[in-house]
Amino acid sequence: MAEELQKLAREKTRPVFVGSVQVGGGAPVVVQSMTSVPMLRLDEGPVLDIEGNLAQIGRLASVGCELVRVAIPNRASIEAFGEVAKLSPIPVIADIHFDHQIAIGAAKHGAAALRINPGNIGSADRVDAVIDAAGEAGIPIRIGVNAGSLEDALAVRDDLTQPQKLALSAAHFVEHFESRGFKDIVISAKSHDVRTTVQAYRQLSRELPDIPLHIGVTEAGGVRQGTIKSAAGLGMLLAEGIGDTMRVSLTADPVEEIDVAYGILAAVDVRRVRPEIISCPTCSRCQVDLMPIAEEVTSRLSTLDKPLKVAVMGCVVNGPGEARDADVGVACGLDSGMLFAHGEQVRKTSADSIVDDLFDLIDTL
Amino acid sequence: MAEELQKLAREKTRPVFVGSVQVGGGAPVVVQSMTSVPMLRLDEGPVLDIEGNLAQIGRLASVGCELVRVAIPNRASIEAFGEVAKLSPIPVIADIHFDHQIAIGAAKHGAAALRINPGNIGSADRVDAVIDAAGEAGIPIRIGVNAGSLEDALAVRDDLTQPQKLALSAAHFVEHFESRGFKDIVISAKSHDVRTTVQAYRQLSRELPDIPLHIGVTEAGGVRQGTIKSAAGLGMLLAEGIGDTMRVSLTADPVEEIDVAYGILAAVDVRRVRPEIISCPTCSRCQVDLMPIAEEVTSRLSTLDKPLKVAVMGCVVNGPGEARDADVGVACGLDSGMLFAHGEQVRKTSADSIVDDLFDLIDTL
Repeated sequence: MAEELQKLAREKTRPVFVGSVQVGGGAPVVVQSMTSVPMLRLDEGPVLDIEGNLAQIGRLASVGCELVRVAIPNRASIEAFGEVAKLSPIPVIADIHFDHQIAIGAAKHGAAALRINPGNIGSADRVDAVIDAAGEAGIPIRIGVNAGSLEDALAVRDDLTQPQKLALSAAHFVEHFESRGFKDIVISAKSHDVRTTVQAYRQLSRELPDIPLHIGVTEAGGVRQGTIKSAAGLGMLLAEGIGDTMRVSLTADPVEEIDVAYGILAAVDVRRVRPEIISCPTCSRCQVDLMPIAEEVTSRLSTLDKPLKVAVMGCVVNGPGEARDADVGVACGLDSGMLFAHGEQVRKTSADSIVDDLFDLIDTL
Repeated sequence: MAEELQKLAREKTRPVFVGSVQVGGGAPVVVQSMTSVPMLRLDEGPVLDIEGNLAQIGRLASVGCELVRVAIPNRASIEAFGEVAKLSPIPVIADIHFDHQIAIGAAKHGAAALRINPGNIGSADRVDAVIDAAGEAGIPIRIGVNAGSLEDALAVRDDLTQPQKLALSAAHFVEHFESRGFKDIVISAKSHDVRTTVQAYRQLSRELPDIPLHIGVTEAGGVRQGTIKSAAGLGMLLAEGIGDTMRVSLTADPVEEIDVAYGILAAVDVRRVRPEIISCPTCSRCQVDLMPIAEEVTSRLSTLDKPLKVAVMGCVVNGPGEARDADVGVACGLDSGMLFAHGEQVRKTSADSIVDDLFDLIDTL
């Protein structure tokens, strides 16, 4: 991955290390995902599919995923998780619900971090046992509170809004973790509702300004709706300097989540590692079939690891001006195109070699 | 379209009527698009394709597009535009650049509104002639300033940011229009850069609080990137109560723009007219192949014209709790599913009839 062009003045959180990856403390916003490989069903009951998880993690890492979470649903899967963690090219976070022994086992089997919801992991003693196991292993814990699983004492309070409940729940847990001397904490407080999510994180960033935040809109839906909800919610937070690591949740191949995550980061100018295409929506002024050209440019740019802005415009009259701050571009006319760089015309190109000539120009930059 | 569930306290702009459609003045945010039909090439030169535009407008209207813009690229197309405007099921806005005579012609030929960039329509006299033509026709004008075509006097000023230039340019034009007694104005100030766009509209809404705003991120790219940039930028603005009408610009079939626009409005709780699906991203806890189920539910919901929240969850343990505020949902287990409504279990369903049973339950609501 190329380095980011631009960083915002961000809330300065304390740095937490998940394996070799720094989260918070001024580091670029870390992009993460989670595997979705079904369990293997062996004679002794379902266990984690080592090969399947590693294959998916490999695909995720190849498109820029920097951290990956793997759910450990039962004790029989702890050793398999250990294999996955050992062989993964990127740090693996263990996701555990309900059974604190699985969390303790994961800490001993190479998890780079734990993600628990202390509200569903059992009694205070059990939470403390998990904290101590993470402390011994020297790994951080993400405290992941969730609108659907708030402590009963909070859930029933009518005097608090849902975002306030989420933030308060997280703050309670942070206080407890820190009172035990454990400070290697990341917080998340997700909802499937964009406004609830945004308000909860805003409150967390005000009240716990130094704790790194994992941001996400949960159960956001399929690619279309999930992209919209994540871009609206996470875009808003990131633009305000909130968020140290992010996950886009889609009911889809998790590889899609990475592409959307980097797209959101670029859209709000927080982190740019990939090319961006500026292309007009076409109208009756447009005298060429622009969509296939834009698609071919998009496809050929996908292998380029630079935050280049490339414009593909449908009319020669407005094109170069409207895309003035593109690094490079082409304005397509009826029988020819005009290549331009930084708003200045470079040369004419013929209609049948527009894309090739554009990429020749990109190569010279 | 069903009515929206929820409205925010919005900036109160003055109402402007585009045909029968109210923009601003507390009306729901109006969703619009623009046709992208290539010109017909007849012996006497290219003219607007009447049938093609009407066919595309029909498709747009059928998915909820409320206003449509058609570019008139030359004088030979004015009468064809008139035919399109007359036969369109939704009000048609004429989009004109450079030639004020086309704008005047469109006003006389049934345009429900004009969209011009006064900065490229020619001298002050010509702008005034367009204003007067719109006044006579009793139709509004959208003043559409654009980062790529600012007046030279503004473009060169180093003491202003790009958003300030956009807002100032629009404010100058508004002042001129109003000094001529013309108040039927909508403003847009688009950039392909999300931050520039958001900052420009924030400034406009502060400085010209009563003028309705048409919001959009321009040249946003293809479906993936354009959806992300539009959701991030327009989501941010809408969540702040900014925006009276919106266009999502995609280099794609414009029908896609409508779906994305309603998705953004729902995501930030500004206007809900369609069902929303809450579906988990699946993980190793999930014991069913959730994606096809979620896709089938999404597809069957697409014909439902109600803002129902429907959850499709991959595990019986967390599902109903996590999707508590869904109107209805199903949590899928290995061999069966649990139907629930408003967080309460309704009944079990067998694996092979999950979707049918879910829709039976929806029918009873």
